[in-house]
Amino acid sequence: MSLSPSRVPAAPALHPFVPAPVPSATRGRVACTLALRHAGRRDAHIDWELLGAEGLPVLLVAGGISADRHVAAGAAFDAAGWWDAQVGEGKALDPRRVRVLAIDWLGADGTLDAPIDPADQADAIARVLDALGIAALEGFIGASYGAMVGLQFAARHPRRLRRLCAISGTHRAHPYASAWRALQRQAVALGALQCDEADGLALARQLALLSYRTPEEFDARFAPAEVVAGRVRVGAEDYLRHCGAKYVARTSPTAFLRLSESIDLQRLDPAGVRVAVDVVAVAEDRLVPVADARALAAALPDARLHVLHSHYGHDAFLKEDDAISRVLADFLSTCRRTEIAA
Amino acid sequence: MSLSPSRVPAAPALHPFVPAPVPSATRGRVACTLALRHAGRRDAHIDWELLGAEGLPVLLVAGGISADRHVAAGAAFDAAGWWDAQVGEGKALDPRRVRVLAIDWLGADGTLDAPIDPADQADAIARVLDALGIAALEGFIGASYGAMVGLQFAARHPRRLRRLCAISGTHRAHPYASAWRALQRQAVALGALQCDEADGLALARQLALLSYRTPEEFDARFAPAEVVAGRVRVGAEDYLRHCGAKYVARTSPTAFLRLSESIDLQRLDPAGVRVAVDVVAVAEDRLVPVADARALAAALPDARLHVLHSHYGHDAFLKEDDAISRVLADFLSTCRRTEIAA
Repeated sequence: MSLSPSRVPAAPALHPFVPAPVPSATRGRVACTLALRHAGRRDAHIDWELLGAEGLPVLLVAGGISADRHVAAGAAFDAAGWWDAQVGEGKALDPRRVRVLAIDWLGADGTLDAPIDPADQADAIARVLDALGIAALEGFIGASYGAMVGLQFAARHPRRLRRLCAISGTHRAHPYASAWRALQRQAVALGALQCDEADGLALARQLALLSYRTPEEFDARFAPAEVVAGRVRVGAEDYLRHCGAKYVARTSPTAFLRLSESIDLQRLDPAGVRVAVDVVAVAEDRLVPVADARALAAALPDARLHVLHSHYGHDAFLKEDDAISRVLADFLSTCRRTEIAA
Repeated sequence: MSLSPSRVPAAPALHPFVPAPVPSATRGRVACTLALRHAGRRDAHIDWELLGAEGLPVLLVAGGISADRHVAAGAAFDAAGWWDAQVGEGKALDPRRVRVLAIDWLGADGTLDAPIDPADQADAIARVLDALGIAALEGFIGASYGAMVGLQFAARHPRRLRRLCAISGTHRAHPYASAWRALQRQAVALGALQCDEADGLALARQLALLSYRTPEEFDARFAPAEVVAGRVRVGAEDYLRHCGAKYVARTSPTAFLRLSESIDLQRLDPAGVRVAVDVVAVAEDRLVPVADARALAAALPDARLHVLHSHYGHDAFLKEDDAISRVLADFLSTCRRTEIAA
């Protein structure tokens, strides 16, 4: 787990860095029994992917409820990853310098139809670390739901984590955001009534998307409404429908319902987190108000707060590549300083 | 139409004002043929209610798409009105001093299944004025959709209106708010697929409600989520479901769809409005951004801008009784000054 300056330069080198080749990513599944907070003991499995050379410090990377273990495209698994902008050769998280571990969320395949607490996800990650023989993570970088799980991991497994970067996710679900998600779940239920969960899930995804973005983005992007064949069609409608359909094709309604619920179960006392945390918030986030991030940073024993501005709101971590790269680079350099200071 | 100082004191009297008794409200229906902007000539009807003594200056009062002609309870029609807080004896709009005219929106009964432009509503109001022999309105006080229609009325019928008060509604539908409404209409369509429009409409109403309110209100009001019988139940869920069911009981799905669409058709050049306008905005409004109100006020030839703060957001006109009363009192006093100056 040590992170020596020769492998991870603390500052940009004057001469080109000559890295080792990126080894193939590996994938696997951990089967285990978990004591779920609200559903008792359950047999479960967690699928993981690990990218980067053996011996490098390990970072756990986790995104929103629709993110998965495939963070970045690579030689072994060349499909696009959900965070290709940040993970890859020459990117903020370079697998020649760090190992990137990620999981498919507990429940992501729809086979676990029970309330899943973010704390359960944190425990599931600990089981994956056990299975992989990883004593501790150098860092946990979580965005959205991943930030919530990261906070739970830091609170529950403090000796297994050096530093947390929590982007656009906090110690609680805001009651307004919870209401928004509850209505998404109602949409799925409405579809299920007619044995057509796809339409319900597509609507739910569109509603979620609205909460991820901002009026500023929509104003810059979409035209005013028009009348088409006797109906009013608004500018964003085709885009939203397309996103809804794409989501339905790759998502189990049960997985959506249980992971959406899981966000609403987030509850944690920041005072109990004994790990250093970078709290990253976006001022325009309509789902996770910046006030909650401020409250989190104020209540954590050891925290730094970064407030970004983005007209992508909650989705900034997926869209503001440069700003997020800078946040991650700063986070990594702090990990290194911690290491050197230790 | 004249408004003499003896009938409407310009300042609070030192001695109690002794008013005439409030005459009964009257109701009626105007049948007419309208040239709808997007649907051609159509036979239509507009139901109206008029409260206050003959000879007093007439104010048109209009609220959101779910508001109707029954603004306030009175002797003739004693059911609660949608703006009892502002209209009534001793209230900001006192029917002993002004006559209050209001309509059921064109399409509100669900019999007009066609695109309805806010301009069509303005023309419908002009037909009601014709039928009632009212040459001009002393004022038009519109909130939400009513403000949009008020702007159209001012643009299309400037000689029939002295002054407009446009609360929480502007010259355009914001593309983000339009997307939000389009998804509400999708919810109705999803319900209709299974011949159960009620569930779809109930979900649509709940989604609308979220857009009318703010995270600050929900945070102050609702508890964190709980697990109940294996499902996650969020704090606002019972409240929202109750509101949805109440709405379904009194609303035709077709009316909702057509009036929701109508909001999205709002488009008007403020430079063409030759009537003085009080633009009233709420900083926390998530549906009508205060930036749009500022743009409207800046583009209108003769406007004043008032920005209120309220954790009720778009619904402030229904909830912030004192602040709205002050806005209305100021509006009326300006109407009077205009009269005196003329």
